[in-house]
Amino acid sequence: MDKKAMVYIQSGGPTSVINSSLYGAIREAEKHPEISHIYGSLNGIDGLLNDNVIDLGQEDRENIELLVQTPGAALGTTRHKLPKDLHAEEYQKILDTLEKHNIGYVFVNGGNDSMDTCHKLSLLAKERKLDIKVIGVPKTVDNDLAETDHSNGFGSAAKYVVNTVREIIADAVSYKSYKAYIIEVMGRNAGWLTAAVDVLPENARPDLIYLPENKFDANAFVDKVAKIYKEKGICVAVVSEGIEFERDDANVKVDSFGHKQLGGAASDLARMVNSKYGISMRAIELSLPQRTFAPLTSKVDSDEAIACGAMAVRKACEGMTAQMIAIKRVSSKPYKAELVPVDISKIANVERKIPTSMMKDDTRMDQSFRDYCLPLIEGEIPVKFENGIIKTCVLKKVRI
Amino acid sequence: MDKKAMVYIQSGGPTSVINSSLYGAIREAEKHPEISHIYGSLNGIDGLLNDNVIDLGQEDRENIELLVQTPGAALGTTRHKLPKDLHAEEYQKILDTLEKHNIGYVFVNGGNDSMDTCHKLSLLAKERKLDIKVIGVPKTVDNDLAETDHSNGFGSAAKYVVNTVREIIADAVSYKSYKAYIIEVMGRNAGWLTAAVDVLPENARPDLIYLPENKFDANAFVDKVAKIYKEKGICVAVVSEGIEFERDDANVKVDSFGHKQLGGAASDLARMVNSKYGISMRAIELSLPQRTFAPLTSKVDSDEAIACGAMAVRKACEGMTAQMIAIKRVSSKPYKAELVPVDISKIANVERKIPTSMMKDDTRMDQSFRDYCLPLIEGEIPVKFENGIIKTCVLKKVRI
Repeated sequence: MDKKAMVYIQSGGPTSVINSSLYGAIREAEKHPEISHIYGSLNGIDGLLNDNVIDLGQEDRENIELLVQTPGAALGTTRHKLPKDLHAEEYQKILDTLEKHNIGYVFVNGGNDSMDTCHKLSLLAKERKLDIKVIGVPKTVDNDLAETDHSNGFGSAAKYVVNTVREIIADAVSYKSYKAYIIEVMGRNAGWLTAAVDVLPENARPDLIYLPENKFDANAFVDKVAKIYKEKGICVAVVSEGIEFERDDANVKVDSFGHKQLGGAASDLARMVNSKYGISMRAIELSLPQRTFAPLTSKVDSDEAIACGAMAVRKACEGMTAQMIAIKRVSSKPYKAELVPVDISKIANVERKIPTSMMKDDTRMDQSFRDYCLPLIEGEIPVKFENGIIKTCVLKKVRI
Repeated sequence: MDKKAMVYIQSGGPTSVINSSLYGAIREAEKHPEISHIYGSLNGIDGLLNDNVIDLGQEDRENIELLVQTPGAALGTTRHKLPKDLHAEEYQKILDTLEKHNIGYVFVNGGNDSMDTCHKLSLLAKERKLDIKVIGVPKTVDNDLAETDHSNGFGSAAKYVVNTVREIIADAVSYKSYKAYIIEVMGRNAGWLTAAVDVLPENARPDLIYLPENKFDANAFVDKVAKIYKEKGICVAVVSEGIEFERDDANVKVDSFGHKQLGGAASDLARMVNSKYGISMRAIELSLPQRTFAPLTSKVDSDEAIACGAMAVRKACEGMTAQMIAIKRVSSKPYKAELVPVDISKIANVERKIPTSMMKDDTRMDQSFRDYCLPLIEGEIPVKFENGIIKTCVLKKVRI
């Protein structure tokens, strides 16, 4: 048998289950005699570019088991984008690393940018007529990957957002005189994660939900919050970080390259409501815990993430390449889904937004969205603690 | 036997275990034939002022059991402060309500402001020679109550902060080029909750911790963050919301009464570091989830909160009054504590801060602090979910 090594790549923003897919891939690979070694590329594609590759076979078994409750990307991640030209120098570096370590299977776990990496690697192998199988594993809390019912990581992030918003509301209504609350949720250009709060029971739902899919009118927003606050004595608005409106430049966060960063929308809007109406406001940005929070991992999400990682390995060993493992929903009640490979070219760089049919109006979701979302936050996974602190896997990272 | 009713009051900011003490009190009261009825005062002392009292005996048993995992104050809370003059009109209103419902036992669950309410009620009963027992139950995530080793609610909030900061750091180090992080933690004038992050394992501890107990120099802070970032490529600073420094007025949140609100320190500091050094920053305010997060409730904290509620009822039935149930630590390794009544006059309005002996320097804690804090975040409680959402108790609130 022609044995070859596999390499696993994590790419883009971490999710609560990013390491669960890695776990699934490792466990599956151990069953395949055609896989000689299980390698991990450090910091995404950078690991192949710079020959920073580790041997996952040398990790302790206990550490591997802990992957399913470990936040962050255990192998490290990147936002590096490969050049368009397949003859660029970077590709030669990647090919050198693949050849040096006799790698025949490449797995890329990521979102739509990362599926671009996956796509380009598969084109490279094809063009150079190399026997290298390249398979993508879906991952993004934004849930904006095309050609899949949903993405690994979304369900757990949604479960965090739904429960955290509920707890914030429970705290809010403890007082006799309430404030107005603006809660900011991740999701860049897609509102899936923001919309998730609409699955809360009718009496616990936020008053207003704003998605980046709809045009946002900040002045109308300010007036609407004030109107609800005056009627009910409280108002809870949930906004996506991706909504666009004219902002005070001093409050827009800028990174070292001068790029605008997302975040801060809630506090800017709270300031606008307060200055126009004098209402006592509280702005809450749910921030990074949305994508890292092990104690609120959804079991459905965790199980699917493991299964997608495993399926990717199985399909590659069967000879498949240039595909991403997508999730196809069979039914919502009861929830049933199957995994199907989809041509990677259909997924790379495509953003999937919430269809208008899933919105009731521009501030509420339709029942069809709730039916879609609820099964994905279902079930809990047992989390191991030590001295009150969640146990996490820290890999030894033995370089090859 | 002279049967009298009891009334339970929740007061001040909610904690993850505020309703656990209520649960403990209810379960204990059911065993005492001298207690005729178990009442709850709605929105703290406001309930007695306005005769808004409910009969907790009419609640479903399942709802009562869910109290231990319900965030917010189930009876509602208040920040109302009673007047100094015991002959003020408000006291007559309170006495009318107590007399009308034949109430002989009053329990006040709260922090140092609330213990002032407790103290005044006990003075009132004494002055008017009324047979009314008044007992306090400790509660505050700030952990600043005097005369007790710690307060119910602190352990769970600390567990949330410790684990969330750890998960944020795990996410942060997933990237090859890091940012600098400033994380803001609750605690008003006491740094207990901020300091808690120092219990993380040495390799996972934040670089800098700033408590309100120490004088804060914003310029020195900015330079220190930049220095660490340049050396390590990352810097994680955890600051208390209570640190004081000169801030851009536009960014200080102001409520409807023109009072400055806490919060926003992290984002102001991040802006200062970015504008001086151009470092890519991320500011994260942990906000309300710190005091509401059921899935990270500490078992030690939950058990003690239940026990304090129960002990308060037991002691009142024994004839004790004008005391708060304090927690006295017997040993840290293994952790052992006992509950002891303490004179309420010693506790009302007193703020307990972190002693200098528990600090290593002005940015790190001493081992004695870690030994103090670690047992309090120990153990987990099983949390019940329904369709992926944490089950919470919503009381029927039958008025008497």
